[in-house]
Amino acid sequence: MVRQDKIRFGAIIHGVGGNISSWRHPKVASNQSVSLPFYIQQAQKAEQGKFDVVFIADGLFINEKSIPHFLNRFEPITILSALAVATKNIGLVGTVSTSYSEPFTVARQFASLDHISGGRAGWNVVTTPLESTALNYNKTIEQHPSHAERYQIAEEYLEVAKGLWDSWDDDAFIADVEQDVFFDPHKLHTLHHKGQYFSVQGPLNIARSRQGQPVIFQAGSSDAGIRLAAKDADAIFTHGASLDEAQKFYQRVKTEAIAFGRNPQEIKIFPGISPIIGESLEEAEAKYQEIVELVSIERALAYLGRYFDHHDFTQYDVDAPFPELGDIGANSFRSTTDYIKKYAKQEGLTLRQVALREATPKTAFFGTAEQVADLVQEWFEKEAADGFIIAVTVPGALDDFIDKVVPILQARGLYREEYEADTLRGNLGLPFKESRYVKHTVS
Amino acid sequence: MVRQDKIRFGAIIHGVGGNISSWRHPKVASNQSVSLPFYIQQAQKAEQGKFDVVFIADGLFINEKSIPHFLNRFEPITILSALAVATKNIGLVGTVSTSYSEPFTVARQFASLDHISGGRAGWNVVTTPLESTALNYNKTIEQHPSHAERYQIAEEYLEVAKGLWDSWDDDAFIADVEQDVFFDPHKLHTLHHKGQYFSVQGPLNIARSRQGQPVIFQAGSSDAGIRLAAKDADAIFTHGASLDEAQKFYQRVKTEAIAFGRNPQEIKIFPGISPIIGESLEEAEAKYQEIVELVSIERALAYLGRYFDHHDFTQYDVDAPFPELGDIGANSFRSTTDYIKKYAKQEGLTLRQVALREATPKTAFFGTAEQVADLVQEWFEKEAADGFIIAVTVPGALDDFIDKVVPILQARGLYREEYEADTLRGNLGLPFKESRYVKHTVS
Repeated sequence: MVRQDKIRFGAIIHGVGGNISSWRHPKVASNQSVSLPFYIQQAQKAEQGKFDVVFIADGLFINEKSIPHFLNRFEPITILSALAVATKNIGLVGTVSTSYSEPFTVARQFASLDHISGGRAGWNVVTTPLESTALNYNKTIEQHPSHAERYQIAEEYLEVAKGLWDSWDDDAFIADVEQDVFFDPHKLHTLHHKGQYFSVQGPLNIARSRQGQPVIFQAGSSDAGIRLAAKDADAIFTHGASLDEAQKFYQRVKTEAIAFGRNPQEIKIFPGISPIIGESLEEAEAKYQEIVELVSIERALAYLGRYFDHHDFTQYDVDAPFPELGDIGANSFRSTTDYIKKYAKQEGLTLRQVALREATPKTAFFGTAEQVADLVQEWFEKEAADGFIIAVTVPGALDDFIDKVVPILQARGLYREEYEADTLRGNLGLPFKESRYVKHTVS
Repeated sequence: MVRQDKIRFGAIIHGVGGNISSWRHPKVASNQSVSLPFYIQQAQKAEQGKFDVVFIADGLFINEKSIPHFLNRFEPITILSALAVATKNIGLVGTVSTSYSEPFTVARQFASLDHISGGRAGWNVVTTPLESTALNYNKTIEQHPSHAERYQIAEEYLEVAKGLWDSWDDDAFIADVEQDVFFDPHKLHTLHHKGQYFSVQGPLNIARSRQGQPVIFQAGSSDAGIRLAAKDADAIFTHGASLDEAQKFYQRVKTEAIAFGRNPQEIKIFPGISPIIGESLEEAEAKYQEIVELVSIERALAYLGRYFDHHDFTQYDVDAPFPELGDIGANSFRSTTDYIKKYAKQEGLTLRQVALREATPKTAFFGTAEQVADLVQEWFEKEAADGFIIAVTVPGALDDFIDKVVPILQARGLYREEYEADTLRGNLGLPFKESRYVKHTVS
């Protein structure tokens, strides 16, 4: 199918790496997750590659078993604000959970980032899966909200944030020196939200931005996550498991968005992929093996346990079939744990095989630049994706992708040569986000 | 008295101005409170002037009566993170209230800013005076904590934040590739705080910084505020009412710090001043009059009301003596309202006189550059201040101060020619903040 739109890319910056043992790679600096120069280099590289966004993930609880990148890393709002000064066009998207924060503060911080960046802010709206997070926020594990309730909270939270972002009409601050009127009082809207979970009066103490409101990303793939995205999100960051599954997911999200009365083009779907690119298939394979060899089975089991509420997998025989786990993990990273349980059974894998696959997943986007470009094109044309978020498994993979794959896609006319706009919405092909208070009149 | 140390300066950046009508001045751009170029220009100017810090104040509630700068402004954490990239040596200090936030999140954001800036972060720890703030944070006005309780909360909050900042020893992340050990588990400390107001397990997911911990500022001048500062703060931002009062305040803080077993040199006192500098006294007076004439009595009364819980002062005769207010304002900006009530009575002022004075206070630091330099020197030598935070009443005042007053003080040997260090603690003459877990041994 020939699509009218173009492929888009984002870059998720993972510091010492999204893999549990990637910090051991000779090309990784041990402090890379708190290195401003590294983050600036990656963001500027992505901008050189005309990417739509850089993406900063997050988490609010660690213990001694957490993966290295989680133990010591930048907080998203702060690093994105810093990157705003070091970049010009690229969008700045960060994860902030709705489960352990206040909508007034978070709406305000993203609005402020949106002004600092001249309209390039995006918020990845998530709920917190790890129930131990409660312990860092004056609560007990039992008080951690259930999966269903977390999404109810998130939905209302986002409603509040969007309401606060419309506190001031776009032209509210008239600054009429003669009349001594700084703002037009008719263009100020006090929210007075009183809901099930939040009570927020407003107004917000910051104006709307050049793109109207920050872009909303969503990253959960459970039913509740998809519902939230279809209703409220401008973009989705999702798994890129297989072409077939990605197509189904794509169809489902677009269909649900239509059911909410939305234009399906105005919700962009970005599977996350971790391309490994070599001059030849053999070189790509060698790069992958370098990474696999950094991981011990002990580390892999501990990593797997994190998805399942820090379940202790060392109690099982690693070479026996993947164990029956019942409900373990269902209230945590549900879509991930369901997915793991399912493929382990279907493919008849041992615990060792599952643990090593999760620790160092072998990406489908693997091979020469030409092969990876072909796959990107196929997924795009077959409506499995509107774009992709590039994660780095092998150090240097982002640079490889931009230097080698991007030019091929540009030559094929599938990818932009220049940014079309200087706001994130503009580059994503989304309209300016109009205020809820704008009245349309027939002229 | 000849002091061994040198004078220090900070710059508070107030966007369209700390005065209610300064936005009407022809040299002020109406969007200046959300203008990144303006903030960068001011911060870089302060850095050119070898200032210790730029300072960003804050508030969490507005309504249609709030002053223009409060209606639409950057959130401190975000703008400071952006300024970190645009500056090299200057400290980055921002206000975040302990009354409507979570210690895990705030400790983390300041720690992240501290890494981004290479050890230049400072947190102005305040409690929220405006009880209406409760309405933005799921509470009723009645649930806004009392003045006394707010300081109890703040004290415990700061204890938690400092504990979280020591989660990892300075050399915890050994990144031993051979042994497959990313961090030394003996150098990880899980806080397990359970107090009256907070329950926070930890550890924090970020390392200690180049200065150990962010610098702590404190800005309340009530008894409870002074106690908190004397116990826990590295610096105080206070009123600069008169030389006599500043000396008393200085003595009191240093004495209380000693009572807490601290070195009085390690708590720096910064009165806030708003210098107005002219080539002659007449030119300074003309600059001041330009500002005064921008303010109407209606605006001045509304501004005064804000300190007194939005009390409506239009109900009084403006030319009668300042009204008896009883307890109004006591649970809000207490030290300010006590101070206003006191001087109004002592000097026998009318409501109009008080309102206009508060709206456009005529600073003592007024006159030619030489005269202002003399005053700065006098306050410093008479131990009324360790330094000053410069606020801008007349547009261009920061530039004037740096271009004209700073060179005089440098010529007198009272002010640095170059930064001594590249961390905020280093420049403030404070030692690296050692972790609570460091064990000293006699060698």
